[in-house]
Amino acid sequence: MNVTILGNNSALPAFGRHPTCQAVELSSEIILIDCGEGTQVQMQRYGIKWRRVHHILISHMHGDHYFGLPGLLNSMSLQGRKDELHIYGPQQLEPIVDAMMHAGGHQFEFPLHFHTLPDGAGVISDGTYFKISCFPVQHRIPCHGFVIEQKNARRRLLIDQCEAYGIPKTFYGPLKLGEDYVAPDGTVVPNELVTAESLPPRRYAYSADTLFSDSYLPYIQNADVLYHESTYLHADVEKAVARFHSTSMQAAQMAKMANAGQLLLGHFSSKYKDITPFQEEARTIFENAMATIEGTTYPV
Amino acid sequence: MNVTILGNNSALPAFGRHPTCQAVELSSEIILIDCGEGTQVQMQRYGIKWRRVHHILISHMHGDHYFGLPGLLNSMSLQGRKDELHIYGPQQLEPIVDAMMHAGGHQFEFPLHFHTLPDGAGVISDGTYFKISCFPVQHRIPCHGFVIEQKNARRRLLIDQCEAYGIPKTFYGPLKLGEDYVAPDGTVVPNELVTAESLPPRRYAYSADTLFSDSYLPYIQNADVLYHESTYLHADVEKAVARFHSTSMQAAQMAKMANAGQLLLGHFSSKYKDITPFQEEARTIFENAMATIEGTTYPV
Repeated sequence: MNVTILGNNSALPAFGRHPTCQAVELSSEIILIDCGEGTQVQMQRYGIKWRRVHHILISHMHGDHYFGLPGLLNSMSLQGRKDELHIYGPQQLEPIVDAMMHAGGHQFEFPLHFHTLPDGAGVISDGTYFKISCFPVQHRIPCHGFVIEQKNARRRLLIDQCEAYGIPKTFYGPLKLGEDYVAPDGTVVPNELVTAESLPPRRYAYSADTLFSDSYLPYIQNADVLYHESTYLHADVEKAVARFHSTSMQAAQMAKMANAGQLLLGHFSSKYKDITPFQEEARTIFENAMATIEGTTYPV
Repeated sequence: MNVTILGNNSALPAFGRHPTCQAVELSSEIILIDCGEGTQVQMQRYGIKWRRVHHILISHMHGDHYFGLPGLLNSMSLQGRKDELHIYGPQQLEPIVDAMMHAGGHQFEFPLHFHTLPDGAGVISDGTYFKISCFPVQHRIPCHGFVIEQKNARRRLLIDQCEAYGIPKTFYGPLKLGEDYVAPDGTVVPNELVTAESLPPRRYAYSADTLFSDSYLPYIQNADVLYHESTYLHADVEKAVARFHSTSMQAAQMAKMANAGQLLLGHFSSKYKDITPFQEEARTIFENAMATIEGTTYPV
């Protein structure tokens, strides 16, 4: 699992930074989290394939988190998409997107399913390879964070062993799923001789836009990677509180309390040209903190 | 008067090209024509000041012509705009923008006036320095082109004469408006000695998205500059017809029939990487044709 940051800025685009969008890649899937204006162009720029996306999560109805969604859907349709797509978001989202598509006379040829986020926390998607949950955070309007959790991670190949037993590379896929290899002469190579246990399933937590509050701490506990917004530096904590946002110091405090493995910072206010102070400030409290850079992929 | 092309591509962004947006500058005003996704970022990139914009014209409800509007309005609000703004577009536009702002809990502190375009042609704004008209074109959904016409262009300074009469530069503004200069000793310098007639008022015509048709020819007649969409090269004329678009050859034919001074081509399909063939094809019929480049300013 990894996450590519497509937009690391808050609402007002500045210094070449874009509004929020992230692409979480796991198994063969890409899950988009939020979809600020320009998402489709950022995806093109950083090689995130639209066809691999079947799930889009929208945290709340501030424009910098979803104004890029209609354009992306439209472009998917123009490119002849047939695969179904699931969108999870606030209940106001579907009628707005419907009205835009209706006004444009657009009809999608792919099945588009809207799922309204619950008022509280809950599992919103549970498939073979991952589970997605949402949890409420504290923002000016209703807003949800998300947790994406790996499931049934595949076994790890012991390449030297595979080669020693002469297993063809075309069988590496079934090996990862736990199958034994049967050679042309009928010899069986038991799976456990050529693979190892998968790594423990990974968890990615996304705080969305929120005030610093321990109300959502239980949901992000022990995340391998926590993305936490840090719109402001702590010198501007009063602004952060007034606008229902957090500072980098608060994000670091949250990562520490949650016992997270790594902290990714983003949603930087356009008042800051240089974002390195966010990282420096957070590291005074939580060492493994990164001020995210657009186009960069962070392993979870 | 001049026009800066902020997006020269059709719906699907490609090769670094963006969906339609143009900034027409005249007097101290900037009039935006269409507002595809990413308009606010393109405006920042090319130094088009949001504060100078008081009129936005939306030709039709295909997303590549207005999906950038909500984000721009939002950003104007975040920047503390107080000046009024007039938006002219199809009647579906206002409720969609309203729903988006309501869902986000946004309240603008600037007066925002929506004006519904008439079914046919008509004058939609008539001020001191310019007049804006709209006219119906032939697209898959209702769509309007626009004509922007200069009014009361200012007199031209005869700099040598101004200097010979010792007129201070601070008085050049009133001179352009036709005022006589009164020197500190009471001597009057008549305006006509130091200025010349203004140039004839200029006309810019914008075809929006349309099939080739002489139905709108009367409205664009004698435009100094005609922007005409040319989504396809003429080899793809069947595609153009099927999708209610035009080819560069048809655009050139229209410019010739309209007796336009110059033809600007745009709304290029994402199937073409190189757009120079559009210009070459158009010039076989109409010499003064340009395939527009994003970020370039064309004098009208």
